Amino acid sequence: MGDLKLDYLACVSLIGTIVKSPTKCQTVELQVSSITLLGDCPADSFPLPRRRVQKEAIPLVTLRKFPVYRLRTDEFTAIMRVRHCLAMAIHQFFDVRGFLLIDTSDCEGAGEVFTVSPPKALLKPGESFFGKGQQAFLTVSGQLQGEAAALAFASIYTFGITCRAEESDTSRHAAAFPMVEPEVAFADLDDILTLGQDLIQFCIAQCLKKCPQELAYLAERRRLDKDKEKEGDEKEKDLITKLEDAIAKPFARVTYTEAIDILKAAVEKGVKFSLPPEWGMDLKSDHERYICEKVYDHPTAITHYPEELKAFYMHRCPPDAQGRRTVACGDTLLQGIGEVTGGSQREVRYGVLSEKMVARGMDMKAYQWYLDLRKYGSAPHAGFGLGFDRLLRYITGIDHIRDVAPFPVAYKQELA
Amino acid sequence: MGDLKLDYLACVSLIGTIVKSPTKCQTVELQVSSITLLGDCPADSFPLPRRRVQKEAIPLVTLRKFPVYRLRTDEFTAIMRVRHCLAMAIHQFFDVRGFLLIDTSDCEGAGEVFTVSPPKALLKPGESFFGKGQQAFLTVSGQLQGEAAALAFASIYTFGITCRAEESDTSRHAAAFPMVEPEVAFADLDDILTLGQDLIQFCIAQCLKKCPQELAYLAERRRLDKDKEKEGDEKEKDLITKLEDAIAKPFARVTYTEAIDILKAAVEKGVKFSLPPEWGMDLKSDHERYICEKVYDHPTAITHYPEELKAFYMHRCPPDAQGRRTVACGDTLLQGIGEVTGGSQREVRYGVLSEKMVARGMDMKAYQWYLDLRKYGSAPHAGFGLGFDRLLRYITGIDHIRDVAPFPVAYKQELA
Repeated sequence: MGDLKLDYLACVSLIGTIVKSPTKCQTVELQVSSITLLGDCPADSFPLPRRRVQKEAIPLVTLRKFPVYRLRTDEFTAIMRVRHCLAMAIHQFFDVRGFLLIDTSDCEGAGEVFTVSPPKALLKPGESFFGKGQQAFLTVSGQLQGEAAALAFASIYTFGITCRAEESDTSRHAAAFPMVEPEVAFADLDDILTLGQDLIQFCIAQCLKKCPQELAYLAERRRLDKDKEKEGDEKEKDLITKLEDAIAKPFARVTYTEAIDILKAAVEKGVKFSLPPEWGMDLKSDHERYICEKVYDHPTAITHYPEELKAFYMHRCPPDAQGRRTVACGDTLLQGIGEVTGGSQREVRYGVLSEKMVARGMDMKAYQWYLDLRKYGSAPHAGFGLGFDRLLRYITGIDHIRDVAPFPVAYKQELA
Repeated sequence: MGDLKLDYLACVSLIGTIVKSPTKCQTVELQVSSITLLGDCPADSFPLPRRRVQKEAIPLVTLRKFPVYRLRTDEFTAIMRVRHCLAMAIHQFFDVRGFLLIDTSDCEGAGEVFTVSPPKALLKPGESFFGKGQQAFLTVSGQLQGEAAALAFASIYTFGITCRAEESDTSRHAAAFPMVEPEVAFADLDDILTLGQDLIQFCIAQCLKKCPQELAYLAERRRLDKDKEKEGDEKEKDLITKLEDAIAKPFARVTYTEAIDILKAAVEKGVKFSLPPEWGMDLKSDHERYICEKVYDHPTAITHYPEELKAFYMHRCPPDAQGRRTVACGDTLLQGIGEVTGGSQREVRYGVLSEKMVARGMDMKAYQWYLDLRKYGSAPHAGFGLGFDRLLRYITGIDHIRDVAPFPVAYKQELA
């Protein structure tokens, strides 16, 4: 090979013969007869820190500073292959069941949306880019348009980037993230909870089947990281075991009211929470974790929250014996992740929906088209949204959302 | 069935027995024993105009005013099923070939980009949402980040919504549209032209195979529409014949220089163009149509455009005998559509790329990371972008881009 001096991460073209390997750690090896340098990699200026020993991994938080070069590490190769597998599994799941993929441009119109502006120079004074009086927002959900599509095609799903402008610098939030939103006509809450469970279990099974090496690598890496952290005295379940358990039996289901009772009983046994559990309050992260991780240690759906806590479009249930109102909703929680899906049966009674919208002070003119869906050839329907990156975190065992996306867009994030 | 009076487009639940039909136009029919009304549809206020006779279609331009209800027509059911089939075909094509799906957040930084702003109330004065000094744009292309990913994973593709803020109220442009962008390491221009051809031919073949009824319906509808228009004396090729021809043989390929010669010869034979063909000019729509529709009547790639006409990142070819510079690029044109893919071999020589960027007055600091990809373990690579809606227009025979998207976002468009 003459005088060719190659640096770490140089790109080369090799010609040779594949032979049986005499060593134990690999089955074959390449006996190289010629080598061509395609792209050198000067070690003195290459930005990514080198790992000192083979087994030692560069911490993901360090890699985050090198968005381009972190993609070339073993960790990211494994994560991105599982990410691809997960995306394919989602499409396959819905395609086989006759769902149509629909791209939406809608948004829920909450406070935390990004507005979209064309370059100012483009417009004359008083002119608007979109139709007169129209403003465009980045979508926070495709659901409302998804409902219109489900009433045309029966079963649809969206799979696109949704955006949320919350100032959330946490491991759970990004400003832009892929969301999967199926919407099904003639379905009720029970149907879509089952659909969500089937979807998640199918996805996990596909990743276990198609990415066994990648998951084994990530499981090993998590073991090493957790050993180093030595946090708590509890031993964490192995990644592969956790995934196999998750698909071995149906998800747990509990109503919000039952969950509050469970939490109250826990308080009496001495468990401490950030806030004392009380009917009517929103569940905090530690409440959710207790239910999902301590009580069931299994993916768990919490259903039928108080009406006041949930979005206007959810189906209103009859009041209970104490006159308390809930809605036909259900959130699926995963151990170590929290909420991965949120869904509901939709309110299709024109009068009830209209009353709820007025009570919440909504812009009735902007949503008249949505309300009208209940007037013209409506059908019962239900749907949910699934956070793609959160499910991927569960499957890969990666703690932070910015470490499972190739180019994360997030609050306070360096953008490439 | 008692006194139940049903309006057109009412939603009902029917219970009955499927029996062999005595009529010729269907093979089976449902003998209904009970009927339940799920959602009535009051005919006096329902917005969508009713078709007067069974065969008469409501013009698509009329339907465009009813974004929600047009989805329930036969036309949109057919178009949306083909759209779904096309999206699945694209994922399948790449998945089988080992490409990784990568979501990007990048943009080319042209003038015509939308900026993204969080709600003002959220931020304190002087504070920024993204990292200090960072501004977020909607992506016009994922290519630059795609290149970084291809240098990590060899073969990748993106499939997401890209945005362009051009004031284009045409049948070819939307402000947001899905784009598919494969990027392949160790590939040159020839490789990605073949990849693009294989992709398009696979997609057409899948739609013919999986949506024969939908395409037959759309072909018939186009025949009726074109008969009504009575435009020109030339008879248009049938939709199915056009698609079968497109996959029967390789796409035509011609260099820009050859194309200019062909156009000049045409002018001498008396053909009139909007502008006289001259080496160095960008090809106008009528030039492209002449080459693709009159000369080849087949999908056609035009390659090696003058360097000045094309983006900075394209590989510079050696000058020709007259000293004229071209780049290793190629656009694929489809009959009746125009450009459906645009791609190139990328410039990987650090010095050449840097020189081109300086000459074009680019912000070198913003693109240093991109330039550095040529410094650290680089490899030859090439890629292209495919306009999803344009390919769908070709396959469905639908003229206008706003009629192939479920919820189009476009200049001067009403946003539902």
